[in-house]
Formats: sequence, C-alpha cells, structure tokens
Amino acid sequence: MKTAYVIAANGSEEIETIAPLDFLRRAGADARLIGLDTKEPVLSHGVTVVCDGVLDEVCGTLPDLLVLPGGLKGAANISASDTLREMAARQLKENRLLGAICATPAHALAKWGLTAGRSWTCYPGCEAAGESVRQERVVVDGNLITARGPGVSLEFAAALVRALCGTDAAEQLVSGTLTLIR
Amino acid sequence: MKTAYVIAANGSEEIETIAPLDFLRRAGADARLIGLDTKEPVLSHGVTVVCDGVLDEVCGTLPDLLVLPGGLKGAANISASDTLREMAARQLKENRLLGAICATPAHALAKWGLTAGRSWTCYPGCEAAGESVRQERVVVDGNLITARGPGVSLEFAAALVRALCGTDAAEQLVSGTLTLIR
Repeated sequence: MKTAYVIAANGSEEIETIAPLDFLRRAGADARLIGLDTKEPVLSHGVTVVCDGVLDEVCGTLPDLLVLPGGLKGAANISASDTLREMAARQLKENRLLGAICATPAHALAKWGLTAGRSWTCYPGCEAAGESVRQERVVVDGNLITARGPGVSLEFAAALVRALCGTDAAEQLVSGTLTLIR
Repeated sequence: MKTAYVIAANGSEEIETIAPLDFLRRAGADARLIGLDTKEPVLSHGVTVVCDGVLDEVCGTLPDLLVLPGGLKGAANISASDTLREMAARQLKENRLLGAICATPAHALAKWGLTAGRSWTCYPGCEAAGESVRQERVVVDGNLITARGPGVSLEFAAALVRALCGTDAAEQLVSGTLTLIR
C-alpha cells in the first residue's frame, strides 16, 4: 500500500491540509496526518485537529509521498524545520513524491534550494524577487507537485492521487467526488 | 457580526465540514464548529477535530446560518437528531439561512419535510424515488442552500459566504483563495 504523510503545523491552512488527506484515503493510500511538533496543532483558522502521530516518531521512514500544506504561519513553521528540509530533499533525490501548496513552495521549498531547475508554482506574490514561477493552478514536474492556494486544494489533492495511485484512481476519485478540474 | 454553526457529527465528511468553516471565518463571520454529540467527533475518513462546543450547549440560540455537512454516516447521525430537525425547521421558517450538502439534503432535510416546494440538490442518487432534485452543483432557493458532494465543497462554502456576508465578501473570498466556480 502506498504511504503518505500530510504534515500539519500550527498555522497550516485547514483545507490545504485536510483535502489531500481525505482524497488520498479515498483512493486507498495509507495517508497519515503528522503533526510537525505537536499532536494537536491549531490550524490557520483556529481548527484543532488530532494527528495520527508527530514528525519525530516517523521521520526515520520516508513515505511514498510527503505533503506540505500552506498557510503563512504554517509555511514559516515548516520552513524552520531541519527535519522536514532533510526529508523533502531526500524525497526529491530518491524519486519519491513531494507536494506543496500556497506559501510553502516559495517559503520552504525554494528557500531550501529544492525548486532550482524545476517548474513550480505558489500563491501569487509569495515567490521571491527574481524567482520565476508558473501561472498554472497545479504544476507537476516529475516528482514535485505544487499548487497555488486554498481554492486549488481539491485539484491539488486530485493531482497527488494521480501521482501516487495512478490515473484510473484519480479519475474515479474526481468523478465520485464531483471535483471540478479546469 | 454574523453567526454560523457548522455541525460536525461522527462520520461527517471532512472537506464538507472544514471548507464552510474556513471560508466563513475568512469572510469575518463568527463561525463555530459544533459537535453533534461529542466535542471530538471522528469524521468520515478518520480525522478527529476538536469542536468549539457541542449542540446541547448552543441549541437555545439560532445562528444566522446553520450548516449541515454530508458523509453517509454523518448524514444519518444528523437525521436522527430531533434537536437539529427543530433547529433546521426554525431556520427556514424564521428566514435564517440553512445549508446542507451531499447526502444530508436528501437523508435529513427531505426526510424532515423541509424540501417540499423548494428547489434543491444532493449527491446524485441520494434522493428518494419520486423526489425531483436539480442537477446544478449548488442550488440557492431563498434561504436554503444545497450542494452535491465533497468536490463541490469550495463552491458551496463560497455560496454560504455570499448568502451570509454579501456579494462583495464572496467575490473577495473567491478571488483571494483562487476558488474555481463553474
């Protein structure tokens, strides 16, 4: 069974965190909600979720897919984590999947040097001066999947399912959930 | 400030629960996550959320907007609640707003007799034999807002913001979150 860790930091955006977890579980993946530094993080709009574990417990094993949600404060907390920086770098290097959305591609992945030479996107304006990002809602470049913001969460989640579980699983998911894909 | 209760039952669909709460809070509403019968319900794909209160504590006061998420088991739990049945009926009668999505419009609202003479929708196939539902993704009929399924959650949430907080707030939200509206 394919494995995924969806990271929930204090300040992670609710929909960007929950939609990937939900869709990955619908597609049959072993998707776990992993608290960055607490099992009960408070997300960006005040919702507290109970995670399946915390990063320190699982960081010894890389999942098939690592998902880093956005939210400005959540992205800052993710960016400050040496453990996540190392895991994200290994995901890309070892040809595992890495997904990030909203502020996080710019404020964490780019800062960590992981977007160099890649096509990627982020929330409009989060990119640093001189960084060139794509204007698409979701950008898939090899094993890196990035997306623009909370309103793109369902499309991002569907793209993660496609990358992890295949086209058939993604099409079944999109159809069954009535997800709108541009 | 406009008030909203988003009900979270055991088995409520994650995205259908969290997206309305998130978008309503973004639009400045006093939106509260209210557990149907526990403060920490386990939603349809295993995510436990910590609610702001439980229904017994708040049922004496009607909000400006009552939101009933879907999920088959969540809809069944909502449908079995006499308190919610009475609150939902009063919402419509007193010209407050009522929103429901996925299985819940059919399995709760229609069963409670609240869809009679109304235009409404639900997850395809959840309607009973002889019930006529609209094929649109979101249907607004006066103070009743219904929608079809988890992939429609963002559009549903935006429609709730429009009904509760106005067109300007909804347009600002849709633009700021990059939500796709058909």
